[in-house]
Amino acid sequence: MATGVSVENINPKVILGPSSIAECIVTNARREINRYLTFFFQHLQQQLQTQPGSLPFDEIVYCNIGNPQSLGQKPITFFREVLALCNHPNLLEREEIKSLFSTDAIARAKKILSMIPGRATGAYSHSQGIKGLRDEIAAGIASRDGFPANADDIFLTNGASPGVHMMMQLLIRNNRDGIMCPIPQYSLYSASLALHGGALVPYYLDESSGWGLEVSKLKNQLEDARSKGITVRALVVINPGNPTGQILDEQQQYELVKFCKDEELVLLADEVYQENIYVTNKKINSFKKIARSMGYNGDDLQLVSLHSVSKGYYGECGKRGGYMEVTGFSTPVREQLYKIASVNLCSNITGQILASLIMDPPKAGDASYDLYEEERDNILKSLSRRAKAMESAFNSIDGITCNKTEGAMYLFPRIYLPQKAIEAARAVNKAPDVFYALRLLDTTGIVVTPGSGFGQVAGTWHVRCTILPQEEKIPSMISRFREFHEEFMSQYRD
Amino acid sequence: MATGVSVENINPKVILGPSSIAECIVTNARREINRYLTFFFQHLQQQLQTQPGSLPFDEIVYCNIGNPQSLGQKPITFFREVLALCNHPNLLEREEIKSLFSTDAIARAKKILSMIPGRATGAYSHSQGIKGLRDEIAAGIASRDGFPANADDIFLTNGASPGVHMMMQLLIRNNRDGIMCPIPQYSLYSASLALHGGALVPYYLDESSGWGLEVSKLKNQLEDARSKGITVRALVVINPGNPTGQILDEQQQYELVKFCKDEELVLLADEVYQENIYVTNKKINSFKKIARSMGYNGDDLQLVSLHSVSKGYYGECGKRGGYMEVTGFSTPVREQLYKIASVNLCSNITGQILASLIMDPPKAGDASYDLYEEERDNILKSLSRRAKAMESAFNSIDGITCNKTEGAMYLFPRIYLPQKAIEAARAVNKAPDVFYALRLLDTTGIVVTPGSGFGQVAGTWHVRCTILPQEEKIPSMISRFREFHEEFMSQYRD
Repeated sequence: MATGVSVENINPKVILGPSSIAECIVTNARREINRYLTFFFQHLQQQLQTQPGSLPFDEIVYCNIGNPQSLGQKPITFFREVLALCNHPNLLEREEIKSLFSTDAIARAKKILSMIPGRATGAYSHSQGIKGLRDEIAAGIASRDGFPANADDIFLTNGASPGVHMMMQLLIRNNRDGIMCPIPQYSLYSASLALHGGALVPYYLDESSGWGLEVSKLKNQLEDARSKGITVRALVVINPGNPTGQILDEQQQYELVKFCKDEELVLLADEVYQENIYVTNKKINSFKKIARSMGYNGDDLQLVSLHSVSKGYYGECGKRGGYMEVTGFSTPVREQLYKIASVNLCSNITGQILASLIMDPPKAGDASYDLYEEERDNILKSLSRRAKAMESAFNSIDGITCNKTEGAMYLFPRIYLPQKAIEAARAVNKAPDVFYALRLLDTTGIVVTPGSGFGQVAGTWHVRCTILPQEEKIPSMISRFREFHEEFMSQYRD
Repeated sequence: MATGVSVENINPKVILGPSSIAECIVTNARREINRYLTFFFQHLQQQLQTQPGSLPFDEIVYCNIGNPQSLGQKPITFFREVLALCNHPNLLEREEIKSLFSTDAIARAKKILSMIPGRATGAYSHSQGIKGLRDEIAAGIASRDGFPANADDIFLTNGASPGVHMMMQLLIRNNRDGIMCPIPQYSLYSASLALHGGALVPYYLDESSGWGLEVSKLKNQLEDARSKGITVRALVVINPGNPTGQILDEQQQYELVKFCKDEELVLLADEVYQENIYVTNKKINSFKKIARSMGYNGDDLQLVSLHSVSKGYYGECGKRGGYMEVTGFSTPVREQLYKIASVNLCSNITGQILASLIMDPPKAGDASYDLYEEERDNILKSLSRRAKAMESAFNSIDGITCNKTEGAMYLFPRIYLPQKAIEAARAVNKAPDVFYALRLLDTTGIVVTPGSGFGQVAGTWHVRCTILPQEEKIPSMISRFREFHEEFMSQYRD
């Protein structure tokens, strides 16, 4: 290899070592762990193919990433019809499409094309996204919340992740700027903070109260960071939670909004799982709705709401679509945000169109509505059944407890590891939960993500397990998990 | 507005002020100028609609951005057929598609779906992109160059811009790390360098020799930067040039490759216009082909080649597809690059598919080939005619000279502004070329980008003008331009 650029002289922020960021208690562990697991199960996958019967399982079950369509979830027909027509608008001139596409998909595709200058889905759009699509999304938000929304506040993005990076780029000046993040936490935030050289200010979710949060503790953590010279700029909240699956109750949301207002923190609300709800006693309120219902407007609170086409009942991860709704920022700041958006010209138009569709799906009376409703409800009901089945299975296993998955796509069971297992893990230089997860994979073919990647209270061990495996595979998966766990525990019993 | 985050306390790298980066002689001027022009012509556009006849022109001609489909260029039918089928794979089960899609588009869509685990175009892919598509791209590169290419070296991206940002993120540690960039230069590089806090080390293209470059001068500029304490990490070359439209001759390419090898600089080769060639006496050689034909392999040179679906004869800007081919880096560095790629999970699958299609279009004998060839050749021949017509028109105007557009999509004529015009511009606090461009827009409706946005030798003034207006509009556009220029010159004659 040529020698100019080596791993010793690249940008150290990329290396993401925990030592580079004082407050960063969640490192890029999850990413590293996932890559390690990936390497591991690629070998297993190969062995399954080349030497069938040589392993104690005959397939790998991926519970490590929220990627529904990779596990067989089918896309919503209406959405795909519209995308196909928008990608090849010549079809709209052909009679034959009437037997291939629903009438409302045809009408919607025509409407969307009419919003695009020159009907050109192959042209760069405005860097915030196509204005007509932003209008549709704003109307969808207004109808969801009962409060007005404005297309000028919408930035269409290639999924939620680039929105997070844009905000980090805007907010982080140096390693004395910090962002409050929940622990446990989906590591997008910690990874992005590390890449931008900022400080992670943790606040802990309380496992014993269903991963709830207490504002008084937030205040302590904020004061603590400030006393160390950190300028705390924003607070991240993920609702429903990832990896924790809880839904915040309204009272917690009110307190959180007031806290951010009082402390002049940007509220970064990750609301990508807003359609994934599996309980009837709670509902999802967007933070914008909560803030507005408290009488707070843009003069009171700087609020960024993130949404994505990757989750919900649609699960369109590969389309890379999403949006940020940005309120409460001055015109000069928004201009700088626009400048950041324009550095990559625009997000992909297929993803932009899909973002408008999820915010304005078929309505009762539309030709596609019955099929749409059936597809959507089947997916959500199945996810709900899977969440309950897996949660109750985990809770029935000795040495595991698991909070209810109220929303999102994950369970985050706590594994009570015996001291001997912890020592065995240390002996091979692995975190105990990584040791457990690798052994699980090796024995059962089940891939989960160790809790170390999300952060956890010291001395507690968890794994994140998606609820996405196909429903018919869950009983056998659960029994393999149970059998593994019992053997593991009896091997290492103190 | 709420007050926590204001333009005074955001990340100053975003503000991109020239003073923040010692060596940054090209600032974000082009972006600022484009935004100013955009504001200006949006007003004009509105006035055209609300008060027809009130302006000295009846339409706005956009020559400011390389966005072909926004100006009526039609997409390649085969590509869009494949995208439609991949976006809605259920269509492949229907008989009716035989009358709507070509047989090879159907076969290609099936082949592509077979490369995707679970045929799931809605799933996240590997963070470098779908392996099967990278295989196709590598095969396309190998067939283009006559030297092997490897799917593991390919990173699929949302257009070329994110590839550039990834490399900046990898290479730039602080403001003492620099990148050599051509002047004039498409401002993606200067903007990205500013955002990542690095130093721009300029090397000038020589207008008098058709925007050629001399390696001896490169060496001087490198030494100069080093003497100032800058660690120069990479050299950007754009071939064909943007905004300058030249094609490097082979000798220059050989010297450039040797220079980068000897100086241990990463060669960042922006080759997005590799299909846009309008002369017969030169051909495009990729820098990889040049390096390999000199006997240099990955042990000798760190090379990054950038490509995009946005340019060429396809012009699919809105799809946000592209790739980087990365050779000569050690495994640990590539792992860090992979980590950066994985921060956004993956690029959009529609763009990934399209990137594979442009590297493996229909071949002679395929059902779509005749139509494909006709569409492609019509576009390229028309672009070539437009380039020649506009170049010869500019050269026939007194006070303007224009190098030949050998490739890419732009002319970069030099405007010899009289001293009085320069003073008039200074009096209203504008750069003279901005003053000229705004006056042009105001008088004729023609939008060009002032040379200030790309950098130019001090005391020379240029505008960048795309060759993309529809062919039938070019004669009247040229005559309006000529008439404007003559009036402008007679108004300000010294």
